[in-house]
Amino acid sequence: MKALGRHFIVELYECDSELINDTDAIEDILLESVKISGAEIIKPVFHKFNPHGITGIVVIAESHFSIHTWPEYGYCAFDIFTCGESIDNEEAIQYVRNELKARTISVAEIKRGVLNLPVEEIRYKPDE
Amino acid sequence: MKALGRHFIVELYECDSELINDTDAIEDILLESVKISGAEIIKPVFHKFNPHGITGIVVIAESHFSIHTWPEYGYCAFDIFTCGESIDNEEAIQYVRNELKARTISVAEIKRGVLNLPVEEIRYKPDE
Repeated sequence: MKALGRHFIVELYECDSELINDTDAIEDILLESVKISGAEIIKPVFHKFNPHGITGIVVIAESHFSIHTWPEYGYCAFDIFTCGESIDNEEAIQYVRNELKARTISVAEIKRGVLNLPVEEIRYKPDE
Repeated sequence: MKALGRHFIVELYECDSELINDTDAIEDILLESVKISGAEIIKPVFHKFNPHGITGIVVIAESHFSIHTWPEYGYCAFDIFTCGESIDNEEAIQYVRNELKARTISVAEIKRGVLNLPVEEIRYKPDE
């Protein structure tokens, strides 16, 4: 079955707690992961919570990357939602895992927008 | 099992194609759904693609709402990722479904950040 989008639900446990409370570091890592994947950045948004925790979301031409961090538990919820065949999700996930020093990871992939159309008729992303 | 976050993956098929290509309408509907849920808006981002399709993401104090629309297929991918017990995800999903006139819907819930901690020790969101 072909789908319009691929959504990777990534659970990162036992991360470096200091690092995942550092907005600059999270911003650098998330943006770099988008570049590694080959996706096109449209607009990034980062927000630091008080007393801890960061949300980072990057709107891309192919949908979005997001991360939410809970430094107090060493946990990050990382999502990659992309359309098209050209995005290297696995490289991006591996990169983020390594950078955040996550000792435990789980990855689930969900197909989004499963259509009753011949595969060749499906267009994944806008023309430009 | 208790988790830090609840993530609702909502597939909306056979939506009103014109409506889901109207950035103002999508912005109004997504922001209203956040309000209905009781979540606190921190920063919304909307982007219109050429020739069609809209991405809308709202960073909230409790994580995020996102929508990606494919008007050419009448399909929308809608996500609600929240932490805490006070958010009314179901009301928000029902509202978006009705507004977009989706004839077919599927909803999956994923627990995010499942921790090996006593339930009463889990804190869901920042103090303010």
